[in-house]
Amino acid sequence: MGWVRFTHFGETVSFGFRRDNAIEEYVGEMFCDPSPAGRVLPFEGTHLLSPCSPTKVIALWNNFHALSTRMGKQPPSGPLFLIKPSSAVCGHEATINRPKQYTGKIAFEGELGIVIGRPCKEVSEIDASRFIFGFTCVNDITATQWLYEDADFQQWTRAKGCDTFACIGPCIVQRFDWRSSRVVTRVNGVERQNYPLNDMILSPERQVSLISQEMTLLPGDVIAVGTSLGVGSLAAGALVEVSIEGIGTLQNTLATV
Amino acid sequence: MGWVRFTHFGETVSFGFRRDNAIEEYVGEMFCDPSPAGRVLPFEGTHLLSPCSPTKVIALWNNFHALSTRMGKQPPSGPLFLIKPSSAVCGHEATINRPKQYTGKIAFEGELGIVIGRPCKEVSEIDASRFIFGFTCVNDITATQWLYEDADFQQWTRAKGCDTFACIGPCIVQRFDWRSSRVVTRVNGVERQNYPLNDMILSPERQVSLISQEMTLLPGDVIAVGTSLGVGSLAAGALVEVSIEGIGTLQNTLATV
Repeated sequence: MGWVRFTHFGETVSFGFRRDNAIEEYVGEMFCDPSPAGRVLPFEGTHLLSPCSPTKVIALWNNFHALSTRMGKQPPSGPLFLIKPSSAVCGHEATINRPKQYTGKIAFEGELGIVIGRPCKEVSEIDASRFIFGFTCVNDITATQWLYEDADFQQWTRAKGCDTFACIGPCIVQRFDWRSSRVVTRVNGVERQNYPLNDMILSPERQVSLISQEMTLLPGDVIAVGTSLGVGSLAAGALVEVSIEGIGTLQNTLATV
Repeated sequence: MGWVRFTHFGETVSFGFRRDNAIEEYVGEMFCDPSPAGRVLPFEGTHLLSPCSPTKVIALWNNFHALSTRMGKQPPSGPLFLIKPSSAVCGHEATINRPKQYTGKIAFEGELGIVIGRPCKEVSEIDASRFIFGFTCVNDITATQWLYEDADFQQWTRAKGCDTFACIGPCIVQRFDWRSSRVVTRVNGVERQNYPLNDMILSPERQVSLISQEMTLLPGDVIAVGTSLGVGSLAAGALVEVSIEGIGTLQNTLATV
């Protein structure tokens, strides 16, 4: 149950609120007082897209205590991040494509995503929640071999910015208590990650506040809050699922070639 | 002389072709067979914006032989880059803003910008020029203190992604021989950079081809091709000008606070 973007039997892109096996279509702006369109569609026959169209996806590194400790790092004082461009975004059930000419490992990272609802600049941590529309699941895909291939320049953007490397979905939920939920990632049905969101170093509100001191966050922008233990790589054709209780399960498949 | 985006006495955003002291307004898509709107406006009274609206600005590091040698680095085999988000873009005569709570140096980097004209994925180096709409000037602004502040994670995105840190303009030219032109950067009228574009390591066509193997480039996207010797910092209130013969001069001022 939550906000989705979709196409219906090849029609143009719409958005609406999914409840069980039906989607109530809405018109207007998802983030700004949308109105019911007056029709309810059976979920069957719809094709989900990423639930929002970010102008940027901000992806955090080293934001969970357990992984930070495992890596032997200090918790950062502020968000350490890269940007995945809009061209990297794909939705639920989309195929993750291996870049041609890349033969290295492709890693999954199950993460919580913050969805921004209003333009947001220099907001305080106390006010930040008013600028958060809701939460979604993110699979932050990485071509890991590129990260440290150059001795001087860490290639976070290249390794994480390829087309289909920002999987987002299946929906956006507005009432979500991140402190009591977990991220579970499964590959071909086998659990690989299962970590509590309350192990987060910088809270969603703190992330929004600190990032907005420097760059304007726009409606639909997504902050992937970072991952924790259990990151691994995907074999060709693997099905990867990121589940967050209270949001849903984001499924994607790595292409077979 | 070249393509500009502008507002005219507070009207909505338009685009057109500037010749000397007049702008011929166009309608449609700048990158796809635009039509004259039937009016010519005096340049006086217009306010230039960035000449395009990139979904992403890809900024290269270590792409000029002279600077690479000075830094003691090897020329890279492929483009090393970060992404500046659309929220960082500003145009000619815009004020560059210092992020609040940042007290370190703010550096200028005069650069050539490639403007993409057509969606572009997995194009060959030979075909790449067909996807380049034209060229512009870029000032790639950096909050340098943040770059290596974290011992483990290079903060290229944060240091270069702040609002107003991607200055682009004043116009886009379509007939431009980069091999015979130079980038000249002046601060308060004093020349600080003056380097030939034919010292570039990866050519514009090679950059477009290689980046497009991994991520889709979209109309209006800008690739800042990297800078060379003479990078320095700006004092509060400084006027910084990036001039490229055959394109024009991009002027910006660092805010006084």
